[in-house]
Amino acid sequence: MVHRLRFTEDCFGQDFDILKEVFEHPAHSPARIQVWVDEGVAQADNSLCDRIATRLDQANGLELVSDVELLPGGERVKNDTRIIDHLLASINRDNLDRRSYIMAIGGGALLDAVGYAAAIAHRGIRLVRLPTSTLAQADSGVGVKNAVNWFGKKNWKGTFATPWAVVNDRNLLHGLSDRDYRCGFSEAVKVALLKNPVFFHFLADNASAIANRKQPYASEAIRQSVLLHLRHITQGGDPFEMLQARPLDFGHWSAHKLEAITDYALRHGEAVAIGIAVDVAYSHLRLGLPSEIAEQTISILQNLHLPIWDVALTGEAVFDGLEEFRQHLGGQLTITLVEDLGYPRDVHSIERSVMREAISWVAGKHNLHSVKAI
Amino acid sequence: MVHRLRFTEDCFGQDFDILKEVFEHPAHSPARIQVWVDEGVAQADNSLCDRIATRLDQANGLELVSDVELLPGGERVKNDTRIIDHLLASINRDNLDRRSYIMAIGGGALLDAVGYAAAIAHRGIRLVRLPTSTLAQADSGVGVKNAVNWFGKKNWKGTFATPWAVVNDRNLLHGLSDRDYRCGFSEAVKVALLKNPVFFHFLADNASAIANRKQPYASEAIRQSVLLHLRHITQGGDPFEMLQARPLDFGHWSAHKLEAITDYALRHGEAVAIGIAVDVAYSHLRLGLPSEIAEQTISILQNLHLPIWDVALTGEAVFDGLEEFRQHLGGQLTITLVEDLGYPRDVHSIERSVMREAISWVAGKHNLHSVKAI
Repeated sequence: MVHRLRFTEDCFGQDFDILKEVFEHPAHSPARIQVWVDEGVAQADNSLCDRIATRLDQANGLELVSDVELLPGGERVKNDTRIIDHLLASINRDNLDRRSYIMAIGGGALLDAVGYAAAIAHRGIRLVRLPTSTLAQADSGVGVKNAVNWFGKKNWKGTFATPWAVVNDRNLLHGLSDRDYRCGFSEAVKVALLKNPVFFHFLADNASAIANRKQPYASEAIRQSVLLHLRHITQGGDPFEMLQARPLDFGHWSAHKLEAITDYALRHGEAVAIGIAVDVAYSHLRLGLPSEIAEQTISILQNLHLPIWDVALTGEAVFDGLEEFRQHLGGQLTITLVEDLGYPRDVHSIERSVMREAISWVAGKHNLHSVKAI
Repeated sequence: MVHRLRFTEDCFGQDFDILKEVFEHPAHSPARIQVWVDEGVAQADNSLCDRIATRLDQANGLELVSDVELLPGGERVKNDTRIIDHLLASINRDNLDRRSYIMAIGGGALLDAVGYAAAIAHRGIRLVRLPTSTLAQADSGVGVKNAVNWFGKKNWKGTFATPWAVVNDRNLLHGLSDRDYRCGFSEAVKVALLKNPVFFHFLADNASAIANRKQPYASEAIRQSVLLHLRHITQGGDPFEMLQARPLDFGHWSAHKLEAITDYALRHGEAVAIGIAVDVAYSHLRLGLPSEIAEQTISILQNLHLPIWDVALTGEAVFDGLEEFRQHLGGQLTITLVEDLGYPRDVHSIERSVMREAISWVAGKHNLHSVKAI
């Protein structure tokens, strides 16, 4: 499990010592480090690569083994097999071994692809992840997965591998658009709803401030979210997903499908927000989740400027998401819902008529909000 | 860790129920199974593939998803990238998911290659290993590694992944030559010397019977060896080799190098036997290992018809094995030796003059034996 999770404001500036310390090495030989950066992040901060190189070159005990290299972000980095070949060839060229380090700086897709290469080289080079999206800082950065797309299928190739360290740096988020920035917080709402009423109330009180990137609210939301995700992975008893229940996939059966139906016009975080809204409504109608919790969840999402509705919910195709979700892990369908704040419950079937009603309920909230907004 | 280790005499005959039971599946859907067999094993037992197919087809709750396929054994299967591509394409074609099974029947190399493909597909298809060499049954079968060769380098690509089950079937060893059969027992001698005096004495008493494939001695030696290896992996606290010490690599620094120097004329098990002899002699000279234990180890190896000597020991090249062994894990050199029966000890340097003396000591034993044999 992730033993080293650090929070910094500017890890290539004032907080460099915090970053430096994660690179353990014997007294007589420096930590050998290769660095891969998301080209979008490098564009948004055009001195970043130079600062990284200078910092590593000047630090005692650290050795940057070759030039900082750029990679595309988003699904492109996971779709292009030549990128994986290039990563592996670079690892071989620089003679990295299992005590060397690969530092990956980027969004979830880049962390996935670089992490995959790091995991299969010599059964695992040490991977230091610096997530540059709120989504990856709040959730996936501490995950124990990596993946690339193969046979035209998302995440077909991949392994379970624990990163050596995860450094959540506030400064690396500056380049994000407001839309992308807000996308990270749907996973925070999800994990708060399932696991931590105090955090849920914090989000209810501060959703607008978070959406407007106000500190310390936004960073605190990321910190609480990632700690709850990490605790689930560490203490949940199923880090490698051997069991059928996937509690952290609350809201995800429809989210995955909505992304596909909209041809990825919806970002993952937006689709998850919609998925949460729908499953909260269903939990209210079918499992007796108190209506004030359902209402409150909806308003948190809305105050975060996240969508709760998409027209794709009116079609039938979204329900195919249930079967696809089942197939993903095989075996019986298992969907995590919520009975009350902090009380998740697994169910093995979804009543379609009740789900239709839930979708209508969400549509009503959405319309009300749209009307208010006018 | 490996939770399911089974011992059978004929798992596609009288003991099929023991094999069948490892394929867990929900009541309403069968276990979907793909089978890969070492072509050498299939040649030695030409009805094997038919028996497998018939058994799986007839068993309630099991589904053979496509024809049993053959693969080459030995390093060829790990060198040929097209084989990995073929494995992955077959997994995709048959829509295997993380609750499906891949059954791999072969020696260590085949288990490594098939295991690698199984590990990276969907972050891990369940792998059921049926090792067909004494070496893999006594040692590597329960290991948590897989690998293929890449960039011309042994095991460059690979992951740590725990097999779903390991079935040690006695019948599958019938096709082995006497030479290959005996090769599995050097790892047994090693683990007995390091960890279990009772097993060491068992080997001392029964080495000739084991070399002659006499039952129950040979099977008992395999069983004790694999259980000690498994216990080390499970309870040794370092399943994924994060630490520098590699206690189970006793005798291996020279063994790996001797294989390379002799251009693999020496089998791995033979090179390990020589490596054990040399490190036992060094342990005697440098760490005070009682001479009767050193002598007894040598005679066990000799009674197993394993070599203790190769002319390559007289050259200087063997000492390069120390640096290569260090590089393999990076950091400081750490070699496990033995102070007394059951008492391993890690050292961080090898005195070359003492090692020369140890090699001479082994040469003396070897010559004595050769003379006796005349």
